[in-house]
Amino acid sequence: MDTPARRLRQSVKTKGLAHVMAAHSPLSAKLVEEAGFDAIWASGFELSALYGLPDVSLVTMTQHLDMVRAMVGSCNLPIVADVDTGFGNAINVLNTVREYERAGVAALVMEDKTFPKVTSLVADGRQELVRLEEFQGKLDAARSVRADPDLLLIARTEALIAGLGNEEALRRARAYEEAGADMVLVHSKQKTPDEIEAFVRAWDGTAPIVLVPTAYPEMNQERIQALGGKVGLVIYGNHAIRAAVGAMQKIFATIQADGGIHRADREIASVEEIFRLQGMDCVKANEKRYLR
Amino acid sequence: MDTPARRLRQSVKTKGLAHVMAAHSPLSAKLVEEAGFDAIWASGFELSALYGLPDVSLVTMTQHLDMVRAMVGSCNLPIVADVDTGFGNAINVLNTVREYERAGVAALVMEDKTFPKVTSLVADGRQELVRLEEFQGKLDAARSVRADPDLLLIARTEALIAGLGNEEALRRARAYEEAGADMVLVHSKQKTPDEIEAFVRAWDGTAPIVLVPTAYPEMNQERIQALGGKVGLVIYGNHAIRAAVGAMQKIFATIQADGGIHRADREIASVEEIFRLQGMDCVKANEKRYLR
Amino acid sequence: MDTPARRLRQSVKTKGLAHVMAAHSPLSAKLVEEAGFDAIWASGFELSALYGLPDVSLVTMTQHLDMVRAMVGSCNLPIVADVDTGFGNAINVLNTVREYERAGVAALVMEDKTFPKVTSLVADGRQELVRLEEFQGKLDAARSVRADPDLLLIARTEALIAGLGNEEALRRARAYEEAGADMVLVHSKQKTPDEIEAFVRAWDGTAPIVLVPTAYPEMNQERIQALGGKVGLVIYGNHAIRAAVGAMQKIFATIQADGGIHRADREIASVEEIFRLQGMDCVKANEKRYLR
Amino acid sequence: MDTPARRLRQSVKTKGLAHVMAAHSPLSAKLVEEAGFDAIWASGFELSALYGLPDVSLVTMTQHLDMVRAMVGSCNLPIVADVDTGFGNAINVLNTVREYERAGVAALVMEDKTFPKVTSLVADGRQELVRLEEFQGKLDAARSVRADPDLLLIARTEALIAGLGNEEALRRARAYEEAGADMVLVHSKQKTPDEIEAFVRAWDGTAPIVLVPTAYPEMNQERIQALGGKVGLVIYGNHAIRAAVGAMQKIFATIQADGGIHRADREIASVEEIFRLQGMDCVKANEKRYLR
Repeated sequence: MDTPARRLRQSVKTKGLAHVMAAHSPLSAKLVEEAGFDAIWASGFELSALYGLPDVSLVTMTQHLDMVRAMVGSCNLPIVADVDTGFGNAINVLNTVREYERAGVAALVMEDKTFPKVTSLVADGRQELVRLEEFQGKLDAARSVRADPDLLLIARTEALIAGLGNEEALRRARAYEEAGADMVLVHSKQKTPDEIEAFVRAWDGTAPIVLVPTAYPEMNQERIQALGGKVGLVIYGNHAIRAAVGAMQKIFATIQADGGIHRADREIASVEEIFRLQGMDCVKANEKRYLR
Repeated sequence: MDTPARRLRQSVKTKGLAHVMAAHSPLSAKLVEEAGFDAIWASGFELSALYGLPDVSLVTMTQHLDMVRAMVGSCNLPIVADVDTGFGNAINVLNTVREYERAGVAALVMEDKTFPKVTSLVADGRQELVRLEEFQGKLDAARSVRADPDLLLIARTEALIAGLGNEEALRRARAYEEAGADMVLVHSKQKTPDEIEAFVRAWDGTAPIVLVPTAYPEMNQERIQALGGKVGLVIYGNHAIRAAVGAMQKIFATIQADGGIHRADREIASVEEIFRLQGMDCVKANEKRYLR
Repeated sequence: MDTPARRLRQSVKTKGLAHVMAAHSPLSAKLVEEAGFDAIWASGFELSALYGLPDVSLVTMTQHLDMVRAMVGSCNLPIVADVDTGFGNAINVLNTVREYERAGVAALVMEDKTFPKVTSLVADGRQELVRLEEFQGKLDAARSVRADPDLLLIARTEALIAGLGNEEALRRARAYEEAGADMVLVHSKQKTPDEIEAFVRAWDGTAPIVLVPTAYPEMNQERIQALGGKVGLVIYGNHAIRAAVGAMQKIFATIQADGGIHRADREIASVEEIFRLQGMDCVKANEKRYLR
Repeated sequence: MDTPARRLRQSVKTKGLAHVMAAHSPLSAKLVEEAGFDAIWASGFELSALYGLPDVSLVTMTQHLDMVRAMVGSCNLPIVADVDTGFGNAINVLNTVREYERAGVAALVMEDKTFPKVTSLVADGRQELVRLEEFQGKLDAARSVRADPDLLLIARTEALIAGLGNEEALRRARAYEEAGADMVLVHSKQKTPDEIEAFVRAWDGTAPIVLVPTAYPEMNQERIQALGGKVGLVIYGNHAIRAAVGAMQKIFATIQADGGIHRADREIASVEEIFRLQGMDCVKANEKRYLR
């Protein structure tokens, strides 16, 4: 059967590197699909932002899952779900994986931070990770509960973010692969790709690496491929919501300044373009066919 | 007590004309507030679009109410809720008004179409309105159930959209005011303001008129004020989502073409700007104060 | 693949008559399963009652779907979903069927009333049905949109309830079967089974009949089978919530009278029994296995 | 203004001891109200059970809050919300208290366990509490964020459950009162009231004590009052769902055995009784008044 999970695995296989773009709504997911990306990043950060909330474990699994489910229903791309820490311990993970799989995702990314998240910038030593063994238990739970063996489990280590260095990042990555992770996401907040490139070069596992180059945007496809085929996915983590914010700020300012929409109307997508994205043509055809 | 409803009534009173901008999320609501508008239009059209669905009564009251509630919780502007037909008949309206008032809205806009909506373009004669008396019953229900007499009930007539002409639009507007509407929204899909201007000039009620100039964008503040103070609210109905769509399309195309985010990153709102909107500074201050 | 829809079809085939019990929560669904019924009736009436609301189209599709989804996730019986009128016209039905099928139901029951429901007892002539052709359009929409041809579409006619007589009920039942209904539910509020028995005897279609003997409880399995194998499903429509209500009233009265739980505690299910239903043994086993 | 919080405070003041009964739905909340209790315990345990899930932090804040909101909307009793650990750390607590207060609760009970809960019976030493100072920070956050100073903050200590003894329980209770708790709930799983009685006798604070005598049902009103007026609330924690479960099991077995509802129908609440609880009389009156 042609499942989303299988399609995502196939993309990575045939293309070497699959490109995954963040979305925060079915609408943005559709735009990601139309733009030609390979998959959608159902980002916790973007959804938190959409709700006007900081990304510190306030948006609930219910809210994220509802949005994921709506995305699955309105586009054909595989969805890579950002489930943070799995919403608790290994017992929560069993429930989390079961629910996201039922929702139809292709992949899950789970990270080795403690719950709830604390902001990275507060200086209180709490940016700590769960013990390696604890996270292995969570991965083991995730692996054992998935119904479809193709569902991709992606372990995300925050070892570099937590300042634990490359050796610890590699040790964790290896341990997570051993515990069943299909891929390993390694995150960095360095302004340049050096740290990540060192990690990838040193990586000796067989699981593909996943990168999120938000902090070091020059890490593009070309540079990733120069690393020799170890990276399977690149996730563009928050560009949808950032584009939307800037555009709304601009058009709101224009309308305020103009005291009306006479100028604004020409600068943004037309109402007809929204109709197209909503599938109004299809509704009209169906009204003809089924309204009697 | 300084309720959102009272604040909105006050805006109309002191400014003559209040400007209401559409939003589809707490984030866009915050941006509307920062841009200096007077109130937020919790648009059914924008929310349907966000869900990738046509605006034909598919998004449920639960989904709209959840979004409205989240908006109320994350900004200080009064919310004008678009409740379509009230989600059914007068019995549904009793429930609808109770729920939206509990959610904290300042105003409700209810329209005189039948449920469910049929697209305007299908040629089957179904673009019909409910009987005038039936809609009066719905307004009467709404008025009797609101707990706060300041909660604004705005009756929206689709008489012009349905091609019934100015006389019918006026007859309905008068009947709706009589049945308890605090304001009357009259909608038109003419490409110029002529039809609406004729309506406003002929309006002999005391309820302020509400306009939504999507189809005739040259109907700006200046032209509205030239009509002599009869218009209380102008609603910019779908510019938030249209701006967001165009911007996402553009940035997605850039990233696809570039094979990375190195160029895109400079064209959109920064991650720090998103942090600011999420209130990360506040989180950091609270972590210092309450995490012990 | 062994889908819930296929299992329900199989039950009807092998047993002749399948027994379907109402539930309003995953918990009650589990109890239905343990009691040995063949399927679960995801009742709109019971869910409305659970929410303390009258069953007049106030509970939204979102609320019902959330409950259905939770039931599917927590028991193995096929779910027969009560979707009332399909939440609008044929366009809504396309969306409704898609969503319920994604949620994992085995069957959908859709009725030929107008939306929103009006109580049966109000004397205003509004207890009317949609036109036969309109309902055929809705069934056609449902049939065309289901992904799994095994998903059971059950057309429910309220012709007898509306006082239109046996001939109209038969005419509609035939038309609905022709339009794609897999089964036909016919409802009656007579206090005896006579009306229904007359309908079943006269039924000349091939689609199995579905009965809901709430108003005429003496219509038991024996009497149904005496009708000669035309009835495929019998739905016990509201006994779960009625049992729960009576029991809560009784225990609340006991506790109030006693000024404590010392006597009540012995009359109700034990805490351990609730633990068992929640699967606490499984949690304990999983904690041993996965918490490291 | 007569808020629910003020009414609950008043009940405690005038009656000495207020009786709080668990509910898991608006329907059960209505029954609690009709039975004459003083408030409703919006129990996490009962809601988990309703969802067929173990009570180990799987039901999300969204799900609990939705149910609480529905209860507030359908009965007049004050609601005492069970928010477990506050759904995370002090930052989550700020959000939690804001949301529950907006939902209209009278009181919040927050406990000093770590998140997520682990079952009490697993032998791995994880039944530990958060540090006293950490919990004080959470209480401080709760107190500072509540808009209504009457909103009751109830600190629940699990010190006895965790086997830390009476001294630690008293030390924590005092510290929690100091940090702003309006009442202190102390929990015990001893089969007799001795442990709790010792605690109450030794209590030297001014905050009223809250008891949940599930494990030691002989701790009735009489025995509580014998302790000398230090106990303000007694919560009957899970009797609604336990009564419902037993009654459904019984009626399901009867219907299965009988092959029909002919006997069952006489043993449970009538359909008319459900109509009464749903307010069908009110609907009929409103249909007459508002359907035109």
